[in-house]
Amino acid sequence: MSVPITGVTLTPVAFADPALLNAVGVHEPYAIRTIIEVHTADGVTGLGETYADTGHLDRLRAVADAIVGHDVFALNAMFATAKRVLSGNTGADGHGLTGMITTSGTVDRVYSPFEVACLDVQGKLLGRPVSDLLGGAVREAVPFSAYLFYKWAAHPGFEPDSWGEALDPAGIVAQARKMVDEYGFTALKLKGGVFPPDEEIAAIHALRAEFPDLPLRLDPNAAWTVETSIKVGAELDGVLEYLEDPTLGIEGMAEVARAVPMPLATNMCVVSFDHLKPSVLQDAVGVILSDHHYWGGLRRSALLSGICETFGMGLSMHSNSHLGISLAAMVHLAAATPNLTYACDTHWPWKSEDVIEPGVLSFVDGSVRVPTTPGLGVELDRDALAGLHEQYLSCGIRDRDDTGYMRRIDPSYELRKPRW
Amino acid sequence: MSVPITGVTLTPVAFADPALLNAVGVHEPYAIRTIIEVHTADGVTGLGETYADTGHLDRLRAVADAIVGHDVFALNAMFATAKRVLSGNTGADGHGLTGMITTSGTVDRVYSPFEVACLDVQGKLLGRPVSDLLGGAVREAVPFSAYLFYKWAAHPGFEPDSWGEALDPAGIVAQARKMVDEYGFTALKLKGGVFPPDEEIAAIHALRAEFPDLPLRLDPNAAWTVETSIKVGAELDGVLEYLEDPTLGIEGMAEVARAVPMPLATNMCVVSFDHLKPSVLQDAVGVILSDHHYWGGLRRSALLSGICETFGMGLSMHSNSHLGISLAAMVHLAAATPNLTYACDTHWPWKSEDVIEPGVLSFVDGSVRVPTTPGLGVELDRDALAGLHEQYLSCGIRDRDDTGYMRRIDPSYELRKPRW
Ligand SMILES: [Mg+2]
Ligand SMILES: [Mg+2]
Repeated sequence: MSVPITGVTLTPVAFADPALLNAVGVHEPYAIRTIIEVHTADGVTGLGETYADTGHLDRLRAVADAIVGHDVFALNAMFATAKRVLSGNTGADGHGLTGMITTSGTVDRVYSPFEVACLDVQGKLLGRPVSDLLGGAVREAVPFSAYLFYKWAAHPGFEPDSWGEALDPAGIVAQARKMVDEYGFTALKLKGGVFPPDEEIAAIHALRAEFPDLPLRLDPNAAWTVETSIKVGAELDGVLEYLEDPTLGIEGMAEVARAVPMPLATNMCVVSFDHLKPSVLQDAVGVILSDHHYWGGLRRSALLSGICETFGMGLSMHSNSHLGISLAAMVHLAAATPNLTYACDTHWPWKSEDVIEPGVLSFVDGSVRVPTTPGLGVELDRDALAGLHEQYLSCGIRDRDDTGYMRRIDPSYELRKPRW
Repeated sequence: MSVPITGVTLTPVAFADPALLNAVGVHEPYAIRTIIEVHTADGVTGLGETYADTGHLDRLRAVADAIVGHDVFALNAMFATAKRVLSGNTGADGHGLTGMITTSGTVDRVYSPFEVACLDVQGKLLGRPVSDLLGGAVREAVPFSAYLFYKWAAHPGFEPDSWGEALDPAGIVAQARKMVDEYGFTALKLKGGVFPPDEEIAAIHALRAEFPDLPLRLDPNAAWTVETSIKVGAELDGVLEYLEDPTLGIEGMAEVARAVPMPLATNMCVVSFDHLKPSVLQDAVGVILSDHHYWGGLRRSALLSGICETFGMGLSMHSNSHLGISLAAMVHLAAATPNLTYACDTHWPWKSEDVIEPGVLSFVDGSVRVPTTPGLGVELDRDALAGLHEQYLSCGIRDRDDTGYMRRIDPSYELRKPRW
């Protein structure tokens, strides 16, 4: 009855990414990801997707070797195996946007794509969508937010993308308009921490004027002091649905939370199970942005959801640049999470390439329909996978480094946190 | 692909129960349970087991009607249905041994057996044991503790049972010896709150002398004041694995926890998800006794386990008088719960009748082997079910009432909490 894992294939890929600005620099011309295929004795293969930074790839390879032979249903045992293999091994947060990484957080981050791939296999074996393995979908489609970025028209030396420049309120409003028109999003999130707070406050007010009914979020990735955060919070009273990571750390967030009128959200100060107790004890955040890529896969993200409900916190969903396998996993998870009441983040509109067969995941009225076919419901496009792997090999990017890239373009650029 | 629920059968049963004493009186001659069969369009039936008190039976019937038509995988939707059907309906704790019952706790308690039965169906449909639906077993057998009770030799007017009287340390030691010899238990729990604390302390010391290597627990069901609890805790320093519910309420438990050397365990002050935040904020308990019958079934009990791990609490397992369907569910849950590191409680040795075909669940070295057949791995014995239903009809017990029964035998008996 056991269905052993017979092997795992890891394929790093790179896909074109626009020059999106953030608090630590600018996205490089290519974003990198690892595509995971878990093969089983039954001939069924499952898919996962995760980061591709060098150290992470090494850790993925170590765990991939160690899970061979496990029954594809033995998720608890595989988690224990990952813990053992990674014992004492703590990853680094190369790009500075997801906060402290702990040893336990590293296990969750490395184990995650294998769990997703095993759930994909399980679903295929059982003839059931992954959402059914998570208690069943409670919604037929999952709403996402428009993820707005300050951006350049092009990477230096590259052709301009189709989105154009956005460096002021008018540019952000135009970007939002295009995104809402094309995808139908019903919530807007601005990635801030790029310009002085007053300019970003102005952008939020401009978005409010143009889209009077859409919930708005602002995420400066901890670019602000506690004082600045409180000031911005006061100025955006009644305008923001939530304010995301205005400042660094649980203590600072707790101080801001006590002083501002809107809920604070985070994907920086609470990014592993270790952080939950201190955050709850200090009442630091009102909304946690879950992300199955570092919360240990879909079942452990469901645990996070239950913790949020139990301890009175809201739940939203975080996104890094990702491809279709991750979107499918996010959609199944969100569909089966009753208390995920905010529209989820996604970088989806910013990419033009993928590794999956097109057609399954599409946005209608800002939402993605939950696949009802067995497993995740997406299949690899082998030619596309080979092409994006070639691009990984040729692009030379091996670790995400928004700051280093920015400094190559503008040597005067300095990383400062807080900046304002 | 959907497998709709076509009907639900609820059968209240009664089985003989010895005269076991506790802080609120004495077990009646029969314990009552409800056996649940969930029928599906595929012809597969799943089993669940729960309490049978009148109000609970009424709530079960309401939810049973409402879940007909749901896909057997739509657990999140069924939970929402139970919540809607029971809206505002809060159960009572008739027997006084499991603390406050909240509205949300009532939903968990009523939903639980349906979830277990649906998981049994899922496992049968998929050809997988229920433990595989919970992430896979991490142990092949689940250790249980010997559940020792002060008891009379017989219920007045009934034949004596095979266990004899136990009203002093010698009687408890003899009972423990018999139980350890017959079942191989490797941990001992004494149900206290019956005699003055000094007598129960003496019983614990007698057990320690007779079984120098076995972990010991004492559970007076909140019969003591904070002061008495602290005094007993000091006297049993180094002797108890944990002290269970010495006193009433989260505040009282927190006060005791700060003063005694051993962890406090509870199945009284934290009995629903509502209670977790206040308990964590006050650091009231070190060990939570989970019980899928009131923690919303197996998947929500897994959530409780994750919460215990996340917030640094230990995890053990509580038991009321139960039959084989419940034991099978407890074993699958415990097997798939890595952080369940204490031997689980069970009343199993105290019963001589059951509704399941015998042979699957047996104790070897104090542990029950996890069934590896599809679903829960147990089947109904229709004749036995009919017989115990007849016994339910004829015995006249409709609501558990340990205190009322005691007062019919000894009119001078008074319920007092705390008693010492
Ligand atoms: Mg963020
Ligand atoms: Mg107890």
